Amino acid sequence: MAKPDKDSPRRPEARVPKGMRDIGAAELRQTHAMLETIRKVYERYGFEPLETPAFEYTDALGKFLPDQDRPNAGVFSFQDEDEQWLSLRYDLTAPLARYVAENFQDLPKPFRRYATGSVYRNEKPGPGRFRQFTQFDADTVGAESVAADAEMCMLAADTLEALGIPRGQYVIKVNNRKLLDGVMDAARLGGPENASKRLTVLRAIDKLDRLGVKGVRELLGKGRKDESGDFTAGADLADDQIDLLEKLYGHQDERSQDFFMHQQKVEAASDDDRTFTSTGNVYVVGHPRFLDVYAGVFSNSPLALEGINELREISNLVRASGYGTLRIKADVSVVRGLEYYTGPVFEAELLIPATDEKGNPVRFGSVGGGGRYDDLVARFTGQKVPATGFSIGVSRLQAALNMIGRAPAPELGPVVVTVMDKDQIPAYQKMVQTLREAGIRAELYLGNPKKFGRQLEYADKRGSPVVVIQGSNEREAGQVILKDLIEGAKAAQAIKDNKEWKETRAAQVAVSQDKLVEAVREILARHTS
Amino acid sequence: MAKPDKDSPRRPEARVPKGMRDIGAAELRQTHAMLETIRKVYERYGFEPLETPAFEYTDALGKFLPDQDRPNAGVFSFQDEDEQWLSLRYDLTAPLARYVAENFQDLPKPFRRYATGSVYRNEKPGPGRFRQFTQFDADTVGAESVAADAEMCMLAADTLEALGIPRGQYVIKVNNRKLLDGVMDAARLGGPENASKRLTVLRAIDKLDRLGVKGVRELLGKGRKDESGDFTAGADLADDQIDLLEKLYGHQDERSQDFFMHQQKVEAASDDDRTFTSTGNVYVVGHPRFLDVYAGVFSNSPLALEGINELREISNLVRASGYGTLRIKADVSVVRGLEYYTGPVFEAELLIPATDEKGNPVRFGSVGGGGRYDDLVARFTGQKVPATGFSIGVSRLQAALNMIGRAPAPELGPVVVTVMDKDQIPAYQKMVQTLREAGIRAELYLGNPKKFGRQLEYADKRGSPVVVIQGSNEREAGQVILKDLIEGAKAAQAIKDNKEWKETRAAQVAVSQDKLVEAVREILARHTS
Repeated sequence: MAKPDKDSPRRPEARVPKGMRDIGAAELRQTHAMLETIRKVYERYGFEPLETPAFEYTDALGKFLPDQDRPNAGVFSFQDEDEQWLSLRYDLTAPLARYVAENFQDLPKPFRRYATGSVYRNEKPGPGRFRQFTQFDADTVGAESVAADAEMCMLAADTLEALGIPRGQYVIKVNNRKLLDGVMDAARLGGPENASKRLTVLRAIDKLDRLGVKGVRELLGKGRKDESGDFTAGADLADDQIDLLEKLYGHQDERSQDFFMHQQKVEAASDDDRTFTSTGNVYVVGHPRFLDVYAGVFSNSPLALEGINELREISNLVRASGYGTLRIKADVSVVRGLEYYTGPVFEAELLIPATDEKGNPVRFGSVGGGGRYDDLVARFTGQKVPATGFSIGVSRLQAALNMIGRAPAPELGPVVVTVMDKDQIPAYQKMVQTLREAGIRAELYLGNPKKFGRQLEYADKRGSPVVVIQGSNEREAGQVILKDLIEGAKAAQAIKDNKEWKETRAAQVAVSQDKLVEAVREILARHTS
Repeated sequence: MAKPDKDSPRRPEARVPKGMRDIGAAELRQTHAMLETIRKVYERYGFEPLETPAFEYTDALGKFLPDQDRPNAGVFSFQDEDEQWLSLRYDLTAPLARYVAENFQDLPKPFRRYATGSVYRNEKPGPGRFRQFTQFDADTVGAESVAADAEMCMLAADTLEALGIPRGQYVIKVNNRKLLDGVMDAARLGGPENASKRLTVLRAIDKLDRLGVKGVRELLGKGRKDESGDFTAGADLADDQIDLLEKLYGHQDERSQDFFMHQQKVEAASDDDRTFTSTGNVYVVGHPRFLDVYAGVFSNSPLALEGINELREISNLVRASGYGTLRIKADVSVVRGLEYYTGPVFEAELLIPATDEKGNPVRFGSVGGGGRYDDLVARFTGQKVPATGFSIGVSRLQAALNMIGRAPAPELGPVVVTVMDKDQIPAYQKMVQTLREAGIRAELYLGNPKKFGRQLEYADKRGSPVVVIQGSNEREAGQVILKDLIEGAKAAQAIKDNKEWKETRAAQVAVSQDKLVEAVREILARHTS
């Protein structure tokens, strides 16, 4: 929009807020179909829907977001009349904890709920990074057993497959905060005084996928200069600390040529890695035997061992249900940014090969994740209520699917009944209603009917398959003309060099007005089969 | 929740924000079904989905809410980092105007969009009155013709019927702001200096349904004392001003015994009031002939006549499509609170007879409405873009349907696989996955499995139709026990006086484990037919 003109200085500028966006019909229809698919899977897993408000009391939400370097700490906040602070929810988990604490007595235990909706982050917007986006969460509250965590992983895998992502083109990675914390302790990074340093370390490890072992090592040490020359300060750890941490994540690097081979390189479609391991000492990353190695390396840390054992239990559970490392695998580099996790953490990653406009390979990264947060309800009640959950980043997943050309074909627009004679509008409107009553998507042209060409342009722009035309001649004959716009476009294409094409009557038919519905149906059937 | 205890003074209180609410599974499932139904009707009318953000720049939203007596002027606002003010949207129309102004060149004209989502009002909450609720809107932007308004009325009627509200138990009332404004002018209430007085007058007329002609007259004069003794100050008009206004709304009062009879009292199911009028000089309220009376009374006001003519046109259009006064009728007492309306205004009202707990008749009032707002896009661009729309108050309509007992029966819960032996959890989980793969809603009991009774209580609380049980005996025999909880509850009911009933094995069957899916399906079929 142009700047407000001088005659009306108070005219507001029409602009979508920074970091927000409007979503059009094609994308929304796809989102809607995705949400329905996810809902069905979550329902099949026995979760029940719950909706909490868009905002909560700020103190009830708590501060668990990563990167809280900005004044508003990642959330949008405002004050109510009674001076209490409110914040738009930044996820669906913190409101769930508030709900459970508030309604604990009345809930079945465990309490299994799913929820979908917008969440809001007061962050610096970037390309493809918005301040409002959609999540779809499932959580089990009141279940101590890692069987609940294992179920989250299977739910994640089933959901991605239901959304049309083939097995092998995604993976659910599992890690455990206890393992991470145990290794931190062993690397002399325990205690509240090291909290901020631990966060730096976790964020560095989280970048393993992008930077490799060498890059992470730099970030753990003095710091790292990237390709553009920008320098990121490091965690400033001693070499022996870094060496120990590297024992955790070092084998995870796909680029390292050690004996832990990355499964997706070796095996394409089978999810049964047991046949694979039987051929020799070759284990895929994420195979439970892998965990034995860690148990040896970190045998001095009871916390790390507890984490490893939980990973092993999860592995056993999903394997018993037939889910191998092609779908769900341990990955000790998974960190998850949110601070409230206390045990197993999960991340759903797309592995679909893709390239950007320049032909460089694109990493979609995480399209969902979650984990165990045993202390979140206790914040309110003081009583520990174990809980675990998984969240799909619907907006992000959809963007990824569209980037690789998985967007569905656009739907047909409505039948448009045109206006030849203004004083016949009631009769045209009745035709529209007749079509609608027959379940056919239809509308009257509601713009200024003077220029008939405009009406056809409008129908074109709407993707209309058929326009209905009735002038006085047709009316007297009790007829209507149906113009098949899709057929017409094809005909125009075929004879595009012929300047006479506009004269042709291709793809146009006159039918008796009382056969309107049948005739329109016939044309629609041609274009939807 | 109790107050935070003294040991942890910083523990937050778990409470839903004032005026907000959590929505549970049964209501959400119903909402979801309603939204799908509305979506289908709106799509059939040729509208396309659009989603705008939850908040907008405050200046872009504008101030059009009624009752802006409070400091925050009805909206929730906060400041962005760059000091620009943002507000949560209070409806879906103001954001649409911003969207159209911002994207005008690229849109088909007319632009027909539907949208659904939460809107937020910073108002004093009351019983059944929340600060977040769901609307479902359809709007046509760029259509000057009242055919667009007539279509909104038909859309409203079709939507309510699709939602299961029988014809005759709702009505779409139509009025016109031009008629109201013309009468105001005639009553010496025109001009900007009378803006606030006009608002008082409109609000008084809006209460005709509740207060009758006498009550409105008091509110237009000195003021009115209600049953509780509370006094509301009036508009302080002179008698001749009130007399003139009464010529507008006076005949509308159902309680007045004049010759305009209220249709619903006379005629139950037919929508063809023409047969009715042919019996004599008896016209139903809202019949187009009614409009002739007004045209006579207000013949001196060109603006009022313009409004009357638009009402007549709308009436002709909907009648041509077969919609009589049983569905859509003129009602000159309809005001609509929002200030941006410029022409026809609509209101959808439920007429379903209902009583409250004390047996008093309940008026559900408006469950939707809308109208023409030709100046809303021009606020941004300076260029007039005529527009009209209709909005369903989904939350309010749903509350009304539930009040009269139209809530759907609760759905069956999931099949619950219980845990007899903790070390067999992987095997139990596999049973669950087997059921899920067969499309059956199922879950593992994820609480502490020690007390088996707890597991059955849980299944009961979840509305589970079947629990699956496998102890060591069954495992050795390759069997599972299926307990039919619905049959079991009936049996328990039948023998409730018999203290031995717990001993019975009613509604319990042992089946081979590899027949698990078939056997569960058989029981489910029994309870869903």
